[in-house]
Amino acid sequence: MQSFDLDKTDVSKIKSALSSGNDEHLKAVLGEYHASEIAILFESITKEDRQRIINLLPVEIASEVISEMHEEAHPEELLLQLHPEKRTEIVEELDYDDATDIISQLEEHEQKEILGDLSEDDASEIRNLLRYDEDTAGGLMNTEFIRINLNLTKKDAIEEIIRQSEEIEEFYTIFVVDDHNIFRGIVSLKDIIKSKGNVHITELVKTEVAWVYPDMDQEEVARLISQYNITSIPVVDHEMHLLGRVTFDDVIDVLEDENTEDILKISGVSEDEELSGNWIDAVKSRLPWLIINLATAFLASAVVRYFEPTLEKIAVLSAYMTIIAGMGGNAATQALAVTVRRISLYDLTDSQAYRTVLKEFTVGLINGAATGLIVLVFALYFDSNPLLGVVIFLAMTGNLVIAGITGAGIPLILKRVGIDPAIASSIIITTFTDVFGFFLLLGLASKLLL
Amino acid sequence: MQSFDLDKTDVSKIKSALSSGNDEHLKAVLGEYHASEIAILFESITKEDRQRIINLLPVEIASEVISEMHEEAHPEELLLQLHPEKRTEIVEELDYDDATDIISQLEEHEQKEILGDLSEDDASEIRNLLRYDEDTAGGLMNTEFIRINLNLTKKDAIEEIIRQSEEIEEFYTIFVVDDHNIFRGIVSLKDIIKSKGNVHITELVKTEVAWVYPDMDQEEVARLISQYNITSIPVVDHEMHLLGRVTFDDVIDVLEDENTEDILKISGVSEDEELSGNWIDAVKSRLPWLIINLATAFLASAVVRYFEPTLEKIAVLSAYMTIIAGMGGNAATQALAVTVRRISLYDLTDSQAYRTVLKEFTVGLINGAATGLIVLVFALYFDSNPLLGVVIFLAMTGNLVIAGITGAGIPLILKRVGIDPAIASSIIITTFTDVFGFFLLLGLASKLLL
Repeated sequence: MQSFDLDKTDVSKIKSALSSGNDEHLKAVLGEYHASEIAILFESITKEDRQRIINLLPVEIASEVISEMHEEAHPEELLLQLHPEKRTEIVEELDYDDATDIISQLEEHEQKEILGDLSEDDASEIRNLLRYDEDTAGGLMNTEFIRINLNLTKKDAIEEIIRQSEEIEEFYTIFVVDDHNIFRGIVSLKDIIKSKGNVHITELVKTEVAWVYPDMDQEEVARLISQYNITSIPVVDHEMHLLGRVTFDDVIDVLEDENTEDILKISGVSEDEELSGNWIDAVKSRLPWLIINLATAFLASAVVRYFEPTLEKIAVLSAYMTIIAGMGGNAATQALAVTVRRISLYDLTDSQAYRTVLKEFTVGLINGAATGLIVLVFALYFDSNPLLGVVIFLAMTGNLVIAGITGAGIPLILKRVGIDPAIASSIIITTFTDVFGFFLLLGLASKLLL
Repeated sequence: MQSFDLDKTDVSKIKSALSSGNDEHLKAVLGEYHASEIAILFESITKEDRQRIINLLPVEIASEVISEMHEEAHPEELLLQLHPEKRTEIVEELDYDDATDIISQLEEHEQKEILGDLSEDDASEIRNLLRYDEDTAGGLMNTEFIRINLNLTKKDAIEEIIRQSEEIEEFYTIFVVDDHNIFRGIVSLKDIIKSKGNVHITELVKTEVAWVYPDMDQEEVARLISQYNITSIPVVDHEMHLLGRVTFDDVIDVLEDENTEDILKISGVSEDEELSGNWIDAVKSRLPWLIINLATAFLASAVVRYFEPTLEKIAVLSAYMTIIAGMGGNAATQALAVTVRRISLYDLTDSQAYRTVLKEFTVGLINGAATGLIVLVFALYFDSNPLLGVVIFLAMTGNLVIAGITGAGIPLILKRVGIDPAIASSIIITTFTDVFGFFLLLGLASKLLL
């Protein structure tokens, strides 16, 4: 393929151009790269170099680089460091939704400073968008799109579309409104051109289309766009006035974000830990979960303490404890991952939820018996104690059944009561398997072996 | 929003129409729903009812329902059960890429049967697509798109586009080729219409665009489309002949799939376990991982056995063992999740990889000391043994450092040697923390407490 990837040679080429101090040479080298590649480069160079490159680039490229920067590379800080004139040029070049996303990361007085330099139109558009929560359709939407009146003729509509498209680089769908900006449907440029004679748009408009309110959660918006395979979805207020559109590229970003959130939450990491953050952020995000885990671990260790007399008599049980608990934790994590992912991809009905738990019960029973049998054989061979083998077999089977039921059941219950099921992280689930595993093993041992 | 979601009322309405036995009534009820909603409904009704609905629906809706069905709902089985005539109608209505995806799931003799009923053109297109691995650009690509010759005039190009678009419902980009079908760039309908006078396409074509070879991995294709915010990317052979295009909606599906894979692998579930699969599939997919885990658990328990004399003298150590091992496992899972997700979103340079491990070392040291201190206080209070407290504190800190280094280091090393880093599942990582945790706690205890 045509390589758009920034490899090591590219990076060192740009870096040596940076250190040459020759702006003309640097400009020429940068000219060979796409804005999104320069945005990637920005992750491995200093703030000063970023600023220097932005100042050298033509404003349309510079604004594209800034809009392509990962949130975690803090484009808003770069913007703030620029000369106010350059900054204003760049912000005016940005799409409103991108400008809003970046500016929303700043302190209020910094926001005011940047907005104060913009034209009144631009500033009020961005101020308007800043009102919406960034995780909603309103926060994702762009207010620049092609909008035509229902009553236009084919000829006038084409002229109007060409006029509006001077301002808008990319459009996928043309939105149709009436005289009061009430959303009436969509039409494609293709259908307008194909139509015979000088028809009115009202004869071409497709009215059965999906639309969303600005307060809809971004995950739901993403699901709709993905379900209907559409490039953009209109955002309307409760009186059906057309406010903006959310496009497929925003949805791709949302999906990436939501999936990061899921995988981190399920592993007991706060969703707001930045992947490229420093150790201070990481400690803040993870220590609370570890302390919760510690509290649950004390619970498990209390079970062990309760059976201390048994352990004093049969010290080898300690060695089996770790096996039973470890296997339970892993089986629970398996059931948890499958269930959380299923919940996030599909809406499960009650009967599907019930069947899921039943399935995990069966899986736990079989996997528990299979691995329990292996440990039983091991115990017979190394400890020559058939009764110990039976105790271990029963504890393993029982613990893997508990693992399956809790691994599937807890996220399903959380979903039902409206809590994000991914929060049922392995930390919470493994407590159950630790406590039950120790209780089963040591309880059975003290009944049967003493 | 306009409700496109199938709620319980909808489902029971359709189900009661199904059981009424009145086809006309059922048809009328189905008419109120979008194809993708009917596809969702299909997950909760019997095979016979699915077949009945497909037979009742107009062929264009029926084919859309089948193409929207989840892979796991097995559209290929439904297709196979239909009357051959109906089936042929539906397959001919499907996009080639969707038809190929569905047919590829069938046995070879079943494929032949279906292809034999198609027109020679359709059959050979699908046969051609069946050659590509389904996880590559070739497997994802669609061969229906708008293709115009570089040498056309504006007027002829518009006519040609209108002609071709009779066949193609949706197009986002117009591909430009020369007389030998060599890909030369893209052009937008908007730019053609906007151009003044009767220019040639060669003056309008945009040549600096991304393209891919058919054997490129789907994850890489998804990354390109997401990086450049494009609706479709052309697929060319090594002589630059235009073969097809991959569209953004395929990429959204790929992202969902890849993310499912990541979250399952990291939790020790085989990537090919179907989320809605039955218990037999689940056992097949998970038992092998549990047996690997059992082998590693025996390793950890061997460490415990080695220190059995120590445990016999200080039985309370068993209670602390579970705490140290559990905390290590969870801290390792945290570091693993953050690192795996970072690797899958960004390409890390060597120095970034090094800094990641260094960061996790620091995080492990701090979180280990913090939680170790809590356990130390606990030990002082409950066991009145300061030296035991010190042993526990050191073991906890050491184990969380190991957890951080292995949780970040192992996936990074796997990535470097070309293995999927998500395979460094919690099962593998927690072995390290179990073994090291027990070794540290029991080793220090036998040195300092006996």
